[in-house]
Amino acid sequence: MSDGRKRILIVGGVAGGASCAARARRLCERCEIVIFDRGPYVSFANCGLPYYVGDVIEEEEALLVATPERFRDRFDIQVHTETEVTRIDRGAREIEVRDLRSGETRREAYDALVLSPGAEAVRPPLPGIDLPGVFVLRTIPDSRRIREAVQGASRALVVGGGFIGLEMTENLVRRGLDVTVVELAEQLLPPLDPEMASPVAARLREHAVSLRLRQSLESLEERPDGGLLARTSSGESIETDIAILAIGVRPLAALAREAGLELGSRGGIRVDEQMRTSDPDIWAVGDAVEVRDVVTGSMQLVPLAGPANRQGRIAAATILGRGGAEAEPRERSAARFRGVQATAICGVFDLTIAITGASEKSLQRAGIERYAKVYLHPGSHVGYYPGASPIHMKLLFSSEDGRILGAQAVGEAGVARRIDVIAMALQMGGTVFDLEEAELCYAPQFGAAKDPVNVAGMIAANIVRGDLSLARWEELEIVKPLLLDVRDPAEVKKGQLSEAVHIPLSELRRRHEELPRDREIWIYCAEGQRSYYANRFLTQKGYRVRNLPGGYKTYRQFRPKSR
Amino acid sequence: MSDGRKRILIVGGVAGGASCAARARRLCERCEIVIFDRGPYVSFANCGLPYYVGDVIEEEEALLVATPERFRDRFDIQVHTETEVTRIDRGAREIEVRDLRSGETRREAYDALVLSPGAEAVRPPLPGIDLPGVFVLRTIPDSRRIREAVQGASRALVVGGGFIGLEMTENLVRRGLDVTVVELAEQLLPPLDPEMASPVAARLREHAVSLRLRQSLESLEERPDGGLLARTSSGESIETDIAILAIGVRPLAALAREAGLELGSRGGIRVDEQMRTSDPDIWAVGDAVEVRDVVTGSMQLVPLAGPANRQGRIAAATILGRGGAEAEPRERSAARFRGVQATAICGVFDLTIAITGASEKSLQRAGIERYAKVYLHPGSHVGYYPGASPIHMKLLFSSEDGRILGAQAVGEAGVARRIDVIAMALQMGGTVFDLEEAELCYAPQFGAAKDPVNVAGMIAANIVRGDLSLARWEELEIVKPLLLDVRDPAEVKKGQLSEAVHIPLSELRRRHEELPRDREIWIYCAEGQRSYYANRFLTQKGYRVRNLPGGYKTYRQFRPKSR
Repeated sequence: MSDGRKRILIVGGVAGGASCAARARRLCERCEIVIFDRGPYVSFANCGLPYYVGDVIEEEEALLVATPERFRDRFDIQVHTETEVTRIDRGAREIEVRDLRSGETRREAYDALVLSPGAEAVRPPLPGIDLPGVFVLRTIPDSRRIREAVQGASRALVVGGGFIGLEMTENLVRRGLDVTVVELAEQLLPPLDPEMASPVAARLREHAVSLRLRQSLESLEERPDGGLLARTSSGESIETDIAILAIGVRPLAALAREAGLELGSRGGIRVDEQMRTSDPDIWAVGDAVEVRDVVTGSMQLVPLAGPANRQGRIAAATILGRGGAEAEPRERSAARFRGVQATAICGVFDLTIAITGASEKSLQRAGIERYAKVYLHPGSHVGYYPGASPIHMKLLFSSEDGRILGAQAVGEAGVARRIDVIAMALQMGGTVFDLEEAELCYAPQFGAAKDPVNVAGMIAANIVRGDLSLARWEELEIVKPLLLDVRDPAEVKKGQLSEAVHIPLSELRRRHEELPRDREIWIYCAEGQRSYYANRFLTQKGYRVRNLPGGYKTYRQFRPKSR
Repeated sequence: MSDGRKRILIVGGVAGGASCAARARRLCERCEIVIFDRGPYVSFANCGLPYYVGDVIEEEEALLVATPERFRDRFDIQVHTETEVTRIDRGAREIEVRDLRSGETRREAYDALVLSPGAEAVRPPLPGIDLPGVFVLRTIPDSRRIREAVQGASRALVVGGGFIGLEMTENLVRRGLDVTVVELAEQLLPPLDPEMASPVAARLREHAVSLRLRQSLESLEERPDGGLLARTSSGESIETDIAILAIGVRPLAALAREAGLELGSRGGIRVDEQMRTSDPDIWAVGDAVEVRDVVTGSMQLVPLAGPANRQGRIAAATILGRGGAEAEPRERSAARFRGVQATAICGVFDLTIAITGASEKSLQRAGIERYAKVYLHPGSHVGYYPGASPIHMKLLFSSEDGRILGAQAVGEAGVARRIDVIAMALQMGGTVFDLEEAELCYAPQFGAAKDPVNVAGMIAANIVRGDLSLARWEELEIVKPLLLDVRDPAEVKKGQLSEAVHIPLSELRRRHEELPRDREIWIYCAEGQRSYYANRFLTQKGYRVRNLPGGYKTYRQFRPKSR
């Protein structure tokens, strides 16, 4: 390994780039390591920006994870901020950089080049998109501008109901603004399945946020008396003082493209498992690269901090000769990116929403048909200990062998924990049988002897083993089965599905003859437990039954208002 | 499978027994299923009893998970409470039962018998142990008696500083009592390693709890003016109004033993992976059986609710012909108990303590020598978002291949989540490299781009890969190495190890020549991150260095007061 005097240049000093630089130094004291960043800061906490706008984080300095001085003093790494890399000369192994303050350009030679340019917020070319009062949020200066604008504002329009859009919404409400969210999809949080996002919409409405789903922004104009007028695709006009564009991000791949590096079909830089681009001396990491989804196998753009950091470490290890094909397994794992499962979480108005692995939508997009799903609504801890709150969960798994494909959860407590456990199991190639057997923390204030993760695994295992057959809520209107409601009378009074036959579980053994034997019966209760008991009984009695997963609570997620 | 009319008798209707009964009914509608319980209740929430004493749970009924009526109505299961099973006639496949109210005895025939007798609280044969005012806590009537006694009491003695003892301590303090805890070991929470339990002792002292470690109760006597006088092994006398014995539990194996069933070396009933005893028609589940520790391979008594429930399900499945040797894998997992990793959690005065897998003590007891350990002290979420609190973590892993052996954590937030993730990884046979790569939930209020689990994996992976060599705090006084403190001056002022050389990390590159090359240097900082950077630098410069894991914060766990 002749890396003694390697010169490693890194384009972009946030997340992946910064991790790469620090890891490279730990592996090689004699290398020269230089970071270039277009912006005024490196290694800042971009995930914290919405909370800086909301004044939850009060000091801008708190967002600076590391400064150029720290890189210099701790790591002997040079950082050039406000310096743009304008061209890669692959033949000469040089880059052209421009000092944005002086305007001067110079060339810098590299042995290894790492591209970590990140992504930029999408700004659609709409009339008025560049008006004052229209913002995106990607950088500390962006957040500073929004903070200033918020001071004189009383209304905000958030365009895009994804993770960042909702975090901005919460923080703008926190600052006292009336907020309207416009989202093109029929649901908030498009990475989730619609029924899992519906409690989020309800929560936003409870906090007086106006939602405009299935609408896009068409134009913005300045109003004579100040403020903006936004027009949406449905013809509606919305008055606002500021508009935040949170439509999504686009990889900053121009530098790579102009250098002739291969891009993927989604416009991100193509890399191999060692984060190497099509040029053997150039690596790329972070939001600008395409990564493999470990569940569906498809290539995706997944702009998340965790994967970016890991990619940076892997690029550094590879550059410094770790983990080649002949290396030991422990070394190879240091220099191989396994892909992403896109674990993500969002908190909004005390509600937590999290996902790992594939959604049902993404399975369908990927053409994966042999999957099954369960819904459940366990408490965050046992009901007999005060303070539990429900977690609405959805688990997706292979209907053939029970392999975990993905999970989503929404609730006020314990959501991150359950999704993290399932994320770990998914990573390890786990099945629903593994979830069933998981031995997790239990004391009354922390969970249940059958943790929500266990229960999800048990229900799913019943399906894979053939002990339980599920119907689909989506087919309720199509199939028009006989519906059997096995809840108690008091529950039925609060709402039920029309035309359901009602026999409480405790009366089923003596009343089951009331049911027809020539028709498929779809059973439901409040959450799915009693209907499971009913299912086992009726199946053994020879009835043709299927269960509506997750019971009436799931129905309410599919039909948030009323039927 | 001729289980059509099987008669399944279950001895003990809490946790394992109740789960077994319900599962058996779901699998077999035509079986006759009967539960016998000595006590007045079945299926009650024994984990909630300390909180009922503490009035956190206000209503006794909340503790009743299921009643005999519910078993009858929902499951067609007969429950006989206050009915003791006094003898098993294996030859006749009958049991002898006594109705404790009428005193009458009768015989009941079985096709399959399931023993779920549980365990009883240990009451050592000490003078005064049966005095009024001396209690154990295993049942609802126990808790009722303690609640009554608490009313007139101002002082309590808790004998035993394990999980139940500490939960009782917290709840008695909550009720306004002055509490003294007597514990035979040198530490609280004996399943944990001592340095991981030390923050718990500190927290108890902050709440004015008196601790008597390395002491046992010798005797109790009534004081003339009322109340009790306890004498301990150190000769101390402690005045108290009530005493709670929380010394541990002992399996209720007498019925099995008298029937000639095989017991294990720890006095529990011996069972196979299908929970079958040495008699092919008798199964046993729950606190009374010995189970295999999946990490050390040793047989243990692990009285926990989660495993008991799973065992009950497995016994039912086996009885009803599921999962034989020729079954499909999905069926086998339904009828095979994989052993325990003894995941456990305890909350006391807003501090959470959790463990999964082996402790260092249990590895040593099992003769497992090729392990390594790391300590870390990450925040429960990123530092730039308000409200994070530290989690003190210890990860144990194979120093040969990185396989996870166990983990412990203590902190105010996020503890259960991290231990659960590691528990899942351990269950799947995961390594520290898997933890390093885990893709977990991250938003600023929920974690970090490098989650504590990732960081634990990264540090451990550095060790297994040979990038970092650790020293042991336990050997500090023996080896007497040169100590290098790389913290900043302000931190050093607040306390440091005596005779440490102090060179802040940021000055190390220009000052390293001050260090000797002929002596081993042990580096530390506050938590271990900066010392890792220093280690990588000094190693590459040719110094002989090792790091003190987890830095000064770990030192404080080993030496809780001062050096």
